[in-house]
Amino acid sequence: MRKTLLVLAAISTISLSAQAADKVAPAPNGIKFPADYQTWQVISVAHRVDNNTMRVILGNKKAIKAVQAGKTNPWPDGAVIGKIVWKQTNNAHWDKAVVPDQFVHAEFMFKNAKKYASTGGWGWARWKGLDQQPYGKDANFTQECVACHTPVKNNDWVFTIPASLPKTGK
Amino acid sequence: MRKTLLVLAAISTISLSAQAADKVAPAPNGIKFPADYQTWQVISVAHRVDNNTMRVILGNKKAIKAVQAGKTNPWPDGAVIGKIVWKQTNNAHWDKAVVPDQFVHAEFMFKNAKKYASTGGWGWARWKGLDQQPYGKDANFTQECVACHTPVKNNDWVFTIPASLPKTGK
Repeated sequence: MRKTLLVLAAISTISLSAQAADKVAPAPNGIKFPADYQTWQVISVAHRVDNNTMRVILGNKKAIKAVQAGKTNPWPDGAVIGKIVWKQTNNAHWDKAVVPDQFVHAEFMFKNAKKYASTGGWGWARWKGLDQQPYGKDANFTQECVACHTPVKNNDWVFTIPASLPKTGK
Repeated sequence: MRKTLLVLAAISTISLSAQAADKVAPAPNGIKFPADYQTWQVISVAHRVDNNTMRVILGNKKAIKAVQAGKTNPWPDGAVIGKIVWKQTNNAHWDKAVVPDQFVHAEFMFKNAKKYASTGGWGWARWKGLDQQPYGKDANFTQECVACHTPVKNNDWVFTIPASLPKTGK
């Protein structure tokens, strides 16, 4: 009996994991969760020493193509920039290396100059925690995003400068 | 005449860029440059405050599969871990964000327990600078890698702990 219960519990866990990506709710402004974002290519990294978080900035294919062409002001329609954020800790075997601890959230900017003209040409969205809960109680949460990004209005609202990388010829 | 020269110069530049990835010399221990590494998925990030560098740690498909299965001690044969290293600077519009400056190098660990038994089961290699020059004057450069990684011998010689990420179901 105990074995049967364990097997049933295991099956149930596997089933829940497999469903997870499809079940993420859209942001309150209707933006859908980009389920494949963990496969995107790196644009840069950052360590926010004001709030003790580590970040990696990723781009979808259109964004990476724009980076490689050096055409990111403005970014092209269809480009999506994602930022994965973790709390910081120190590597157990090299304490001068600051590294990710707990996952905080993944947040995104979706470029479409016309569709998102009222919010700087970008659609904004964030999903919090390992259970990927959409951020914001209604569609007005984007005002918070726009306000914080206003200092980089002249950089097409983007803080990140793509990191220098060797050309790969690809 | 001036126009002809400009066109010739442009063609020559394009040709040199396209050749770049294929022309990277192997490491002194014979390990070939993994030309597609910039497309690999993120394992983690790090900020070394002892030498003021920013890092992103990437994995090839076998490495990412091992991360997602939680089977990274030991890592499976065929896994390759890459680390891209930049000098650090501060974001021009948010000075509490430490971000990449000049590209320093990309370095790699290639897992093959038998083939690389004499160097911890890993093949080691590094290519320096935007022109991707192989590191080390002869094959013995790997002793330097192994010596530095000895504190993490019990973690299969790897400092990086894969960063926590939501399950994607992929």
